[in-house]
Amino acid sequence: MVKVVDVPAMVRLLKGHGVERFLAELTDYISDDFRRWPAFDKSPRAATHSKDGVIELMPTCDGVLYGFKYVNGHPVNTRHGKLTVTAFGVLADVASGYPLFMAEMTLLTALRTAASSALAARHVARPESRVMALIGTGAQAEFQALAFKAVLGIERIRYFDLDPAAMVKFARNLSESGLILEAATSAADAAAGADILTTATAAKTRTELVTAAMVRPGMHINAIGGDCPGKTEVAPDVLGGARIFVEYTPQTLIEGEIQARDGAFDVTELWEVITGSRPGRRNAAEVTLFDSVGFAIEDFAALRYVHDLATARGETVELDLVPGVADPKDLFGLLR
Amino acid sequence: MVKVVDVPAMVRLLKGHGVERFLAELTDYISDDFRRWPAFDKSPRAATHSKDGVIELMPTCDGVLYGFKYVNGHPVNTRHGKLTVTAFGVLADVASGYPLFMAEMTLLTALRTAASSALAARHVARPESRVMALIGTGAQAEFQALAFKAVLGIERIRYFDLDPAAMVKFARNLSESGLILEAATSAADAAAGADILTTATAAKTRTELVTAAMVRPGMHINAIGGDCPGKTEVAPDVLGGARIFVEYTPQTLIEGEIQARDGAFDVTELWEVITGSRPGRRNAAEVTLFDSVGFAIEDFAALRYVHDLATARGETVELDLVPGVADPKDLFGLLR
Repeated sequence: MVKVVDVPAMVRLLKGHGVERFLAELTDYISDDFRRWPAFDKSPRAATHSKDGVIELMPTCDGVLYGFKYVNGHPVNTRHGKLTVTAFGVLADVASGYPLFMAEMTLLTALRTAASSALAARHVARPESRVMALIGTGAQAEFQALAFKAVLGIERIRYFDLDPAAMVKFARNLSESGLILEAATSAADAAAGADILTTATAAKTRTELVTAAMVRPGMHINAIGGDCPGKTEVAPDVLGGARIFVEYTPQTLIEGEIQARDGAFDVTELWEVITGSRPGRRNAAEVTLFDSVGFAIEDFAALRYVHDLATARGETVELDLVPGVADPKDLFGLLR
Repeated sequence: MVKVVDVPAMVRLLKGHGVERFLAELTDYISDDFRRWPAFDKSPRAATHSKDGVIELMPTCDGVLYGFKYVNGHPVNTRHGKLTVTAFGVLADVASGYPLFMAEMTLLTALRTAASSALAARHVARPESRVMALIGTGAQAEFQALAFKAVLGIERIRYFDLDPAAMVKFARNLSESGLILEAATSAADAAAGADILTTATAAKTRTELVTAAMVRPGMHINAIGGDCPGKTEVAPDVLGGARIFVEYTPQTLIEGEIQARDGAFDVTELWEVITGSRPGRRNAAEVTLFDSVGFAIEDFAALRYVHDLATARGETVELDLVPGVADPKDLFGLLR
């Protein structure tokens, strides 16, 4: 039997355990797996591109557990009332190859992205950060806001989106969160006075949403939206003036904000900061930027966490996906 | 909702529809997809190797549907009463990226392997073939025997395995199949008088199970067991004397019997025979060999077939793996 956390079970888990507590614990699981980064098999994604989108399989393995995520990215979907990104994932036992656990990952991908952002900020943002600008209040926004509240102690969110309805939705969803929510009139207005600047728009081209004029000394920029070839949100001179932190350099060079940079430049991988092998923030004035694109080890950690939490809370369903046989040579015996 | 054919549903389908009818119809689905071979995206498998086995993701896509199979190969599993190979697969909608259908593929992989063997034999074995030697009566054996009965009209099976218990199991499972079953005392004894020679052993090394002395003019060799690097069953001089048919040359050169051959040699891909662009059997005397390793398009066809059959017979269960949302920007709304 494969244990499954389907969408209703994930919703029950989040409501029962609390979204902030979930995000804080998930951040720690991701941190634990980043800490043992060299132990992972870091395969490239297997991507299948079509006219309107991409379907990807993202595998990784730590020698004991194997995990993969199925995920699509179809920006056209929102025109038809569908989600741009849906996902599910599987954990398997490396020793036997048997699948053990499956989970919906549409919600979980949003949660792990927010937790990974919060993890990066915990290591490179100024610890006294209390105000976050949030540009883009789409499907990711509430998860980012709550992760930064839970993990960083962010108290105030200055938010902006080109779509006024998305701003209303964001404010409604977080009305009881305890966060102070300030609607801004532009991206620049949102950034004014912010310690942390999070960009999570659905920009489909190389936009320059974050300009040098919006950045002040000591700011941490959490750049979520630039996450595939041809899609960036940060102006080149902002990148040039910031210390850049990434998940996995070979992938971020293709998918992240740094695809827009020419010439040689230095990036630090987040796991190097977590293990102490390279410095995070060096002083209160430098500008830091987390160029997040999402990486398989974050999904692996998220599956581990949800497996452990759902098992402890009894929130799994069962799926009979692998036959049990008395004699391994007698597969046909299942039909007798 | 993702429709699922779990193990109990697959067993009900096979019992309700009949294994032979299932195999014959599945053979036609595979034939249809081989016929439109150039339309498929033929990505390499993503393989994760460990000490005792391998876990693979095998994706393919025809522009309308995307499919992938998760499959493991762990020969050590049989020591612990577990299956060497387990699998499951998914079909998704290319236009939206949404997963649509999931099926157990442990049984289905055995069925599609047998159907692919029968498809190859339908095109390259002598049509009057009635006697098949079957060397290796493990988990694949009954499916091979029934596919060749249903698709080729095989009437008599001469079978051999080094494990007498596996031979007893095979005969018991097929006692009511209508096939004439003849237990042989050796591989060579099984081959005596056979029109078709099927090898499906779990040999883990380069064995020479099929020697030139066992091969007679006009024989078709269906070589199933040589399916990964370092694992072959056919002697090089048998390969040298046969016309060789494969699924996908780049993969078979690594995994198939032909990995054992040196120098230049010609192979024909099965889809070329099915579409008529290259000849199958040219005369009654030539020896033909299907060097089967398994290919993603066979799994894709198998998922399509099971989807259609299970839908028609009402044998699917539902899994809530993808959230439905009123507003795609309001993923968080699921938690309200």
